[in-house]
Amino acid sequence: MNFDSDSEAYQPVDDLCVLAPGLIGASVAMACQQNRIANKISIWSRRANSRAKLVDQPWCEKVCETPAEAASGADLVVICAPVDFIVPLYNDIKESLKDGAVVTDVGSTKSLICRQANTSGTSHSHSHFVGSHPMAGSEKTGMEYANADLFVNRPCIVTPTENVPDSAVKQVIRFWKSLGALTFVETPEVHDEIVAHISHLPHLLASLLCNLVEQQDKSWEQLAGTGFKDTTRIAAGDPSLWKAIIETNKEEINRAISKYQDELHRVQSALTNNNMVQIVSVLEQGKQFRDRLS
Amino acid sequence: MNFDSDSEAYQPVDDLCVLAPGLIGASVAMACQQNRIANKISIWSRRANSRAKLVDQPWCEKVCETPAEAASGADLVVICAPVDFIVPLYNDIKESLKDGAVVTDVGSTKSLICRQANTSGTSHSHSHFVGSHPMAGSEKTGMEYANADLFVNRPCIVTPTENVPDSAVKQVIRFWKSLGALTFVETPEVHDEIVAHISHLPHLLASLLCNLVEQQDKSWEQLAGTGFKDTTRIAAGDPSLWKAIIETNKEEINRAISKYQDELHRVQSALTNNNMVQIVSVLEQGKQFRDRLS
Repeated sequence: MNFDSDSEAYQPVDDLCVLAPGLIGASVAMACQQNRIANKISIWSRRANSRAKLVDQPWCEKVCETPAEAASGADLVVICAPVDFIVPLYNDIKESLKDGAVVTDVGSTKSLICRQANTSGTSHSHSHFVGSHPMAGSEKTGMEYANADLFVNRPCIVTPTENVPDSAVKQVIRFWKSLGALTFVETPEVHDEIVAHISHLPHLLASLLCNLVEQQDKSWEQLAGTGFKDTTRIAAGDPSLWKAIIETNKEEINRAISKYQDELHRVQSALTNNNMVQIVSVLEQGKQFRDRLS
Repeated sequence: MNFDSDSEAYQPVDDLCVLAPGLIGASVAMACQQNRIANKISIWSRRANSRAKLVDQPWCEKVCETPAEAASGADLVVICAPVDFIVPLYNDIKESLKDGAVVTDVGSTKSLICRQANTSGTSHSHSHFVGSHPMAGSEKTGMEYANADLFVNRPCIVTPTENVPDSAVKQVIRFWKSLGALTFVETPEVHDEIVAHISHLPHLLASLLCNLVEQQDKSWEQLAGTGFKDTTRIAAGDPSLWKAIIETNKEEINRAISKYQDELHRVQSALTNNNMVQIVSVLEQGKQFRDRLS
């Protein structure tokens, strides 16, 4: 599924639009400006004080008052809003898009967004929506943490639906590759299954571990070491962003939790039966897998 | 439970013995030498090649061929072996200890060790065993990672049993304080309940998450981001060390897993019923707790 077959040189975007820049969106704009990936960058931000800050940024040529204004001349639009605002923003800009414009996003869930965007777009077939999920960022949010190298060597999953022309998909893939990302192509549904396991389940596991320890004696938290802190770091993420992510992927997350519960039950049985061979097998497989990631 | 009431100045140990130095034991010896906490340090290591390396270390005055030889003149003995070797080593040295010698350890579980050490010690009441658990270290093991500051501002739980004189408990507490540790006193049983929640459960959660993802499509691991890597870092720990830790604390770990499963079930119900208020509450409590740890 790794997309490495495209040898065509990247054509810079003539007119790029970034909607709702936070950490990801500002990093997209910054990387495009520094690497001359876009000739012109128009940006809209919901808050007036964010728009005021954008005026001084070298990576922002035009600050717009509305999403439609920012997107009106764009060849490529990158919607960087939280997952529950992506389709509404797409609906806001659709009528203003020029013929052949390609729209992508950076949302952490893809099925609902890509299906809704492409359904709502059927009467405006002059533009194309191709979902993306650059797997970069951290528990920090906001433009002030942006950097031009955020996507370098980081995975980016591009999730086209069946009705989108190949040319639009290729344009989105080439765009992320030009920012240094390692691009992968999956259906929106497979994407959501993958991230349920490698991102959303881990987030909930970290949150629940914090919840569990928080319910115990208050003094215990003084004893939490670096292991506990690493394991729970992602629980510090923004609850409102994560609420929307979880809400739009709840079936896949629920399935992943069920599989995880089965694993926990097996460990409990092994402990009850003093089956240390099985415990060692869990520890060894875990170590082998984790060592490969390093 | 924080032990901060002791204002007496620390008296250096005249003769310190460290048995089985790995990361923790070598760091103890290094810190004692650099801070003049011991006048003489005798060390025994099981492997001949480790003993050969010890000869050149400035923090090792005497390398011994047997544990009993190393411990024979000691005022304080620190047993740094894996949890399943601590009581056997104590039994090996008991007969050789001088009157009033105090023995401690650095094991990650305490009930079995402290109860067995103090039972086996009844016929030799001239020495005293007081358990310790300095919560320092990492997934790295071995003397080569040792450093004299390993214990500075790190918690160390001291776990006396009822039959041990106060003077021995105080000596162990003062020793860890002199290495910079933040000392706490708990019964061995409460210690094991705490670490089941803040250390052993997190370790198993990380291992099981690796096991679960390892069972999926092989390509998924290329997509694991920094969040996944942080959450699973501790799964890279040494399986044989962790096997012994888990084996000696399995009842408390099993209870902690059961509580954790209840939390997971609640999240699953909330997802099934689209009760996002409850999901947000989990995320917010998790974030509040995690932010306090930073």
